[in-house]
Amino acid sequence: MKITEVALVVKGTVFGKKSSRIGKILPPEEANKGDLTFLYDPGQNTNADIVITTARVKGKSGVVVQDPKRAMYRLLKHLTNTRIKPGISLRSLIGKGVVLPRQCRIEPFAIIGNNVKIGKGTCIGSHCYIDAGVVIGRGCRIHTHSTILSSTKIGDYVEIHANTVIGEQGFGFIRSKGYKRIKHIGGVIINDLVEIGANVTIDRGTIGDTVIGKGTKIDNLVQIAHNVKIGRDCILMGQVGIAGSTKIGDNVMLCGQVGVSDHLQIGDNVVVYAKSAVLKSVPSNKEYSGIPAREHRTVLRAIARLYKNAD
Amino acid sequence: MKITEVALVVKGTVFGKKSSRIGKILPPEEANKGDLTFLYDPGQNTNADIVITTARVKGKSGVVVQDPKRAMYRLLKHLTNTRIKPGISLRSLIGKGVVLPRQCRIEPFAIIGNNVKIGKGTCIGSHCYIDAGVVIGRGCRIHTHSTILSSTKIGDYVEIHANTVIGEQGFGFIRSKGYKRIKHIGGVIINDLVEIGANVTIDRGTIGDTVIGKGTKIDNLVQIAHNVKIGRDCILMGQVGIAGSTKIGDNVMLCGQVGVSDHLQIGDNVVVYAKSAVLKSVPSNKEYSGIPAREHRTVLRAIARLYKNAD
Amino acid sequence: MKITEVALVVKGTVFGKKSSRIGKILPPEEANKGDLTFLYDPGQNTNADIVITTARVKGKSGVVVQDPKRAMYRLLKHLTNTRIKPGISLRSLIGKGVVLPRQCRIEPFAIIGNNVKIGKGTCIGSHCYIDAGVVIGRGCRIHTHSTILSSTKIGDYVEIHANTVIGEQGFGFIRSKGYKRIKHIGGVIINDLVEIGANVTIDRGTIGDTVIGKGTKIDNLVQIAHNVKIGRDCILMGQVGIAGSTKIGDNVMLCGQVGVSDHLQIGDNVVVYAKSAVLKSVPSNKEYSGIPAREHRTVLRAIARLYKNAD
Repeated sequence: MKITEVALVVKGTVFGKKSSRIGKILPPEEANKGDLTFLYDPGQNTNADIVITTARVKGKSGVVVQDPKRAMYRLLKHLTNTRIKPGISLRSLIGKGVVLPRQCRIEPFAIIGNNVKIGKGTCIGSHCYIDAGVVIGRGCRIHTHSTILSSTKIGDYVEIHANTVIGEQGFGFIRSKGYKRIKHIGGVIINDLVEIGANVTIDRGTIGDTVIGKGTKIDNLVQIAHNVKIGRDCILMGQVGIAGSTKIGDNVMLCGQVGVSDHLQIGDNVVVYAKSAVLKSVPSNKEYSGIPAREHRTVLRAIARLYKNAD
Repeated sequence: MKITEVALVVKGTVFGKKSSRIGKILPPEEANKGDLTFLYDPGQNTNADIVITTARVKGKSGVVVQDPKRAMYRLLKHLTNTRIKPGISLRSLIGKGVVLPRQCRIEPFAIIGNNVKIGKGTCIGSHCYIDAGVVIGRGCRIHTHSTILSSTKIGDYVEIHANTVIGEQGFGFIRSKGYKRIKHIGGVIINDLVEIGANVTIDRGTIGDTVIGKGTKIDNLVQIAHNVKIGRDCILMGQVGIAGSTKIGDNVMLCGQVGVSDHLQIGDNVVVYAKSAVLKSVPSNKEYSGIPAREHRTVLRAIARLYKNAD
Repeated sequence: MKITEVALVVKGTVFGKKSSRIGKILPPEEANKGDLTFLYDPGQNTNADIVITTARVKGKSGVVVQDPKRAMYRLLKHLTNTRIKPGISLRSLIGKGVVLPRQCRIEPFAIIGNNVKIGKGTCIGSHCYIDAGVVIGRGCRIHTHSTILSSTKIGDYVEIHANTVIGEQGFGFIRSKGYKRIKHIGGVIINDLVEIGANVTIDRGTIGDTVIGKGTKIDNLVQIAHNVKIGRDCILMGQVGIAGSTKIGDNVMLCGQVGVSDHLQIGDNVVVYAKSAVLKSVPSNKEYSGIPAREHRTVLRAIARLYKNAD
């Protein structure tokens, strides 16, 4: 690939040697002569001599763009083949009454239960278990070893990474000579454009559904309990846990290892910083941290006071 | 289903229109006309016109019961078919010397190692790996993609959810030109009526066993290290982690994301609140929180002091 | 096995009845008459009458060694058969152009993608998914249900436990009418002698690689984000999470449930105690704890002050 082609893809302006061929694409500190890198700051140090950044860099070639992160998004998308090769593996097991358009891909050792409906262009990875009656929309990618249990409805263009479990019984019991599990009959609704990481668990509702709103992105090893409702365009980072029946607004960001207690209401546009525990409902448009979580600036002040003269 | 039938199942007294047919069963805030819901407080707002609650509600029909949660348990149990359809899938692999009663179910792509013993009415889900010599009791449900490694003994009526791993090598090393794993030869004992969530990990003992006591319930993404002993009727919520050789009494509740350090003794009837880290042994019958964990009321007092005048 | 044989294996000196046959090998508090146990302190109480410890114990037999933990390592290694039985299961699927020496073992329902290279003596467990182009060295053990995605390179003598996912897309997005995933084209490099627990997730780099240094040991349910670089001989205990692009030195110990924020530099020989959150870069040779993490002694002092007169 030449710089001129890269410039077309990232919608920027070439500078330096236009005909340079790019070698590897690497982070600034790992790149060498001939490699291409992205510099959020054009003054940043790198051995790469081809850079995509916000201004011309002396002695280097590259592409000037407004937003190098967006340029990276465009270039990597261009370089990635996301088309699936349709086909139903003879080593998969397909139940009765399954709706399966020709453009789908079902990989070996996958099991598709009775009456499952799968949309056009969807790929079910190897070793997946799709339970009877599950509905999966168009253009979805369900990666290897995932388990999608009954009463789950998945929208369009949803991506679910490996080893994730959706729709297991929630953790609700009554006490009666020991604990007895309340049988969960609710479902899980995963709306369009949701992405879910690897080794995630999302439980079905007791009655009523667990819901993940459109465009929400969930990282690896996250736990979402029964009847949780998550709004649109939220970000749940690695190892977050949300307890039963909690409602989370739109555009909420829960940073790594955050926990949210059960039956709470979290407003829109809330940010909760890493490792915090939200134990009370919180209104919209604010930032929280701490255990138990409070407004972030309050926590910063209390911590400053705690450590005053302590170092 | 009619209200009169529901009343029989939940053992309550009908009020209002006895012949009403119930629509969906939904939470109070999601239910509509014709639906049935459960109200812990009979004054709670809902559009459902069929309610199961502790007193008659004007303008609605329903069933009066002493304990609506228990009524929910009874009704959902009644509505759920928990019987398995026995049969050994031709796509499973069964080793030599396996004890496998006719009433069992082995799903496709499951592997049952040599000399495994499985009790009556047990179901091994698709893609499970049951290692040589494992013993599993009667009426168990081992869900899809679970891994049960050798030296594991599972009692009766145990349920293990998807993608859970039981019996891997524990995290014990000696230092000798880098770390070298100590080979673990102990086992895992899962007693009767234990339930274990999805994506859980329970390691085998180094020497001696890791033990989960009768009736204990474990939520998703929990880590239980080698040689941990957990008593009866404990509740371990999502993402709890327990380090090696710790002993936990009976009726202990560890809330979400709690961590317990290694080689500790936790008494009976202890409650540890969410996100706490227990770094010292604690006696019975008390509540703990904080990092490091202390008595809960002490922590509340210290936090109140820390935040005094800080908001 | 007799005490004299044990003494040869653990390289120690017999005392007491040399010809005693050992029963079970159990922890001190679980052992009974006839059993063997290890005592780190020769005065420790046990019913075992065969002990491996640092000095003769009156009334018992056993072996005197300098380091009982090392003796345990030696004895358990001696008792464990770690040889694999080579062979390619007819129920596995092997792609085109795969390099697969005769001494390997591929278990049933495993999938080996096109052009995968596997070294001598490596075992790929049942139901594993090894993506096209993956390289795995000699003497590796990839346990059941693991997923190794493309652009992953694994060195020699690496062990990866069950249900672990290596090489999924990292959690990086741009915002543009909702979030859009940046396609990750980097790889994962797992160096020699690394061990990785069960249900772990290690994401591929965005550009450039995620790297795990030689001899590093990773426990269960750990999350390692895209472009993280971890040095040699580190210990990452259960449920640790490391956010994107963070660099960790050699000989670092991250205790259970520790979180490390993104784009940080952690020096060599750092210890971070359980449940801490590292939010800033930290230099070598120090101990940290707390949320946010500070030097451990500072945190201890601040906590002492906070709880003064609070109990």
